[in-house]
Amino acid sequence: MMRIFHSAEMLPLELGGVLPEVDIAYHTYGRLNDRADNVVWVCHALTANSDVADWWPHTVEKDKFLDPDRWYVVCANILGSHYGSTGPLSVNPATGTPYYGSFPRLTMRDIVAAHRRLADHLGIVRINTLVGSSVGGFQAIEWAVQEPSRFGRLVLIATDAKASPWTIAIDETQRMAIFADPTYGAPSPDAGMKGMAAARAIGLLTYRGPQGYNATQQDPAGQSLDVLHRACTYQKHQGDKLCRRFNAYSYVSILDAFDTHDVGRDRGGVDAALSRVDIPTIVIGLSTDIIFTPGEMRRLALSLPRARYAEIHSRFGHDGFLVEHEQLNSLLKAFMNETD
Amino acid sequence: MMRIFHSAEMLPLELGGVLPEVDIAYHTYGRLNDRADNVVWVCHALTANSDVADWWPHTVEKDKFLDPDRWYVVCANILGSHYGSTGPLSVNPATGTPYYGSFPRLTMRDIVAAHRRLADHLGIVRINTLVGSSVGGFQAIEWAVQEPSRFGRLVLIATDAKASPWTIAIDETQRMAIFADPTYGAPSPDAGMKGMAAARAIGLLTYRGPQGYNATQQDPAGQSLDVLHRACTYQKHQGDKLCRRFNAYSYVSILDAFDTHDVGRDRGGVDAALSRVDIPTIVIGLSTDIIFTPGEMRRLALSLPRARYAEIHSRFGHDGFLVEHEQLNSLLKAFMNETD
Repeated sequence: MMRIFHSAEMLPLELGGVLPEVDIAYHTYGRLNDRADNVVWVCHALTANSDVADWWPHTVEKDKFLDPDRWYVVCANILGSHYGSTGPLSVNPATGTPYYGSFPRLTMRDIVAAHRRLADHLGIVRINTLVGSSVGGFQAIEWAVQEPSRFGRLVLIATDAKASPWTIAIDETQRMAIFADPTYGAPSPDAGMKGMAAARAIGLLTYRGPQGYNATQQDPAGQSLDVLHRACTYQKHQGDKLCRRFNAYSYVSILDAFDTHDVGRDRGGVDAALSRVDIPTIVIGLSTDIIFTPGEMRRLALSLPRARYAEIHSRFGHDGFLVEHEQLNSLLKAFMNETD
Repeated sequence: MMRIFHSAEMLPLELGGVLPEVDIAYHTYGRLNDRADNVVWVCHALTANSDVADWWPHTVEKDKFLDPDRWYVVCANILGSHYGSTGPLSVNPATGTPYYGSFPRLTMRDIVAAHRRLADHLGIVRINTLVGSSVGGFQAIEWAVQEPSRFGRLVLIATDAKASPWTIAIDETQRMAIFADPTYGAPSPDAGMKGMAAARAIGLLTYRGPQGYNATQQDPAGQSLDVLHRACTYQKHQGDKLCRRFNAYSYVSILDAFDTHDVGRDRGGVDAALSRVDIPTIVIGLSTDIIFTPGEMRRLALSLPRARYAEIHSRFGHDGFLVEHEQLNSLLKAFMNETD
């Protein structure tokens, strides 16, 4: 069940401006034990929500790595998003109307500030395991750098310590597609939908990569040229699907925050920042990921004081972390037992 | 110097409809020798033109593989394009106004039909070497399947015998970006420009890939978040640059033709078609190409009766074929000497 923590205290933002008040939507699974040492905090990616059991199949289940009988699992919807936390469709208390395009620009650090506020509100002092994949991993690394002693273990899946030029170029291209739709900017939750559909299709290309598409989107043999290629139908469908569940202002807000990710900012650079993360860590790469390539993931593991690297074999590119739950559960259960 | 061959004969199109007349723009370099056995025909890619010396640096030069002292090099601008051949901005003789969105849908075979018409017009019976990279390779393979005895050698660089689901998904995503711009469809050469800029940025992502961006688009250390990331500037710049030199109707026309590429259509499948290509062939892959991956290029070489595979090492992804002219010239000069 989704709950909303309403924090009436204003949240100052890294790039200036404030949110006069914040809502933070979250899910929990399982129960906090008596020693309060079984918290697993999951940070979610781009367009996901706080309901981990919904978007990460076969993880919040008995005998899986987020087994709710053993762990107290917490996930908060990120600021700027569409699923209950304060974002562009929220009403700006100063004007009485939704923010839309006037929503202030967020950084990854602002998003982590909201996580910290929720953790404090829930009375969670110590977090046994902090988990983040993709942009969720951005939040996890940033939080671990800020408060290394708060965490017992760190799980980083297909992510990075700083947004790379490649990932920023992907985001910029998505923004260009959204801005090509002149309805973006209108004071409506439906603004920029065609642009966002194209942006989502760009995202999908990078999530699945060559192997993913070629494994799943082949046309039937001998298909006529009058019939739309399966790969075309798939791209349109994925675009439409996001338009039914998200809004373009939130999409842009999170892309913008993505690009600000750099744990080294004002901390003497990435390596200096990561040297603070004296936490048993597992860094997991995906063999066919073209966003966070296995080579980069190996380098990330080498930059962290106590990290090991493991690789999941998958045809599904970056999306492999959502698909290969058997490999993932096996790796993470072992890691979480071993480091206890 | 660009010349235009005007063919008053109507060109029937594979998907129905006709072009009542066709212009074919072309460049030649060097001279046809007395034995008429020194023709090298180059097929160009997506948004290039017939001026090979312009878009393929250090190839049409003394001692390079397209040395004009030795070879008579011919390149034709493809149908549907923006550089002199009949395309969407051409005047439809039936209406007296430009085609724009009413330009008939082309296939790769229609584009090859125009090449054949030009070759016949120029009196070129036999072609010593047929060269194609990327979509140029689509044309080269298709033409080689149609008339294998016309060619002495075949050079296929970063290309395929059939558009894969992955490449079709990339094209569909670019169309989605163009169609998100409602000016596309207007009877003007400037229609859909913002959409085409986003489409081009999508293309660039796939041309350069992770290694390409991370090698060349790093921000200076300590850059403030108020300054646009270099990767953002680059994407915008590449989009704007294409808008100054191309039109969105041609862009869509060529993407559509790309997706129709399948040498196996009505020929019993790809393998059956390729078995006809009994020509000494070199297939060249690029080590970091995410569009036509080295693995797929190796498989293409294995499907051709007389092909060898070679790989160019590059950080520049698919665009490596334009950048790594030293490796390319060395491979191709050896291949062209050896098979003489």
